[in-house]
Amino acid sequence: MIIGKVVGSLFSTRKNEKLVGNKFMIVETEKDMFPGQKRLVAIDNIGAGIGEYVMVAQGSAARIGCDMPDAPIDAAIVGIIDEGQDWSK
Amino acid sequence: MIIGKVVGSLFSTRKNEKLVGNKFMIVETEKDMFPGQKRLVAIDNIGAGIGEYVMVAQGSAARIGCDMPDAPIDAAIVGIIDEGQDWSK
Amino acid sequence: MIIGKVVGSLFSTRKNEKLVGNKFMIVETEKDMFPGQKRLVAIDNIGAGIGEYVMVAQGSAARIGCDMPDAPIDAAIVGIIDEGQDWSK
Amino acid sequence: MIIGKVVGSLFSTRKNEKLVGNKFMIVETEKDMFPGQKRLVAIDNIGAGIGEYVMVAQGSAARIGCDMPDAPIDAAIVGIIDEGQDWSK
Amino acid sequence: MIIGKVVGSLFSTRKNEKLVGNKFMIVETEKDMFPGQKRLVAIDNIGAGIGEYVMVAQGSAARIGCDMPDAPIDAAIVGIIDEGQDWSK
Repeated sequence: MIIGKVVGSLFSTRKNEKLVGNKFMIVETEKDMFPGQKRLVAIDNIGAGIGEYVMVAQGSAARIGCDMPDAPIDAAIVGIIDEGQDWSK
Repeated sequence: MIIGKVVGSLFSTRKNEKLVGNKFMIVETEKDMFPGQKRLVAIDNIGAGIGEYVMVAQGSAARIGCDMPDAPIDAAIVGIIDEGQDWSK
Repeated sequence: MIIGKVVGSLFSTRKNEKLVGNKFMIVETEKDMFPGQKRLVAIDNIGAGIGEYVMVAQGSAARIGCDMPDAPIDAAIVGIIDEGQDWSK
Repeated sequence: MIIGKVVGSLFSTRKNEKLVGNKFMIVETEKDMFPGQKRLVAIDNIGAGIGEYVMVAQGSAARIGCDMPDAPIDAAIVGIIDEGQDWSK
Repeated sequence: MIIGKVVGSLFSTRKNEKLVGNKFMIVETEKDMFPGQKRLVAIDNIGAGIGEYVMVAQGSAARIGCDMPDAPIDAAIVGIIDEGQDWSK
């Protein structure tokens, strides 16, 4: 999983019907996580708020692990990181 | 998922037979999404037009989520982003 | 999928037995497709020739979409791009 | 698999329920493994300690290989590398 | 698949039990294959020797294609490249 910060949300009215009801969050991955800055869109079904640091699972883990095995989802927020931790040490 | 802009379409007459009937769109990923510019080819079955910003799902999510589990598809447009949003803030 | 140019073929006599009978092509991905130049080896069962531009599917889509779900294949040529198109505009 | 060094652990109280009971470790991939430095979060069920060098499996191999096929896990520590080996030669 | 050179092997005594009996090889990917140098660990069940050039399959293809669908394996040597070929032309 990678660590990122929730920086926004995204609305998409015209979409694949299996995505209806999902919240799409924009996550900015932490610098240590990639050679460059990167943003991605992840679904959120654990209630992450803007500004929170989260773990994002990518690939088939996102849809299968979030009980939507047939949905076109390749990234999901799967945990909110407890405050006060430093993952760059 | 990543965010990109539909910049063109692509025609392929000689192709895997399971791809017949699909529309292939060229999507340019937004700069924030990758350390560098990048283009990819995604199938589109929600009717995205050139110039629209879209969410693209990659990997097994593309074929399974678009009801073509046996097709050689690794990227699909799964949502058109509503206008007036800013994902680079 | 990504776009690349077929630049050569590759022979491998000692290989996983499920790969027997496949043609291995060297594909050079187009510059727009990645932040840097890249080559990869893809199987070809649609008859792409050297110099042709092709679509390559990666990941599980390659083996499942090409009817070799049990073979160790992670990239396949799935379409030959019709001439006269410009995917860098 | 890639080689990395365990540099820390991570706590996440609010998380996907299928992740409950797992240990999350921060792994710093070795420089030879990527064009740039990179960190990722991997589950650990073999008891790797901070400072140890480990093999990390990514993708569907992580959840399926660790007997959690339905969990949103995309990276797992799958082996601790014996001391005294040099993988940069 | 990508092309790489076998540059070493790796021992891991404490590992996931499904990995027992496998040989772990360090493969250095060829420069043309990535924007930067990269090494990875791949299992080998076709008998590649140090110094040989090989094809490596990544992702689910590695474990499924090598008849270990339940093992935490994400990279496997699947073919030894015949001598005298040039994949950088």
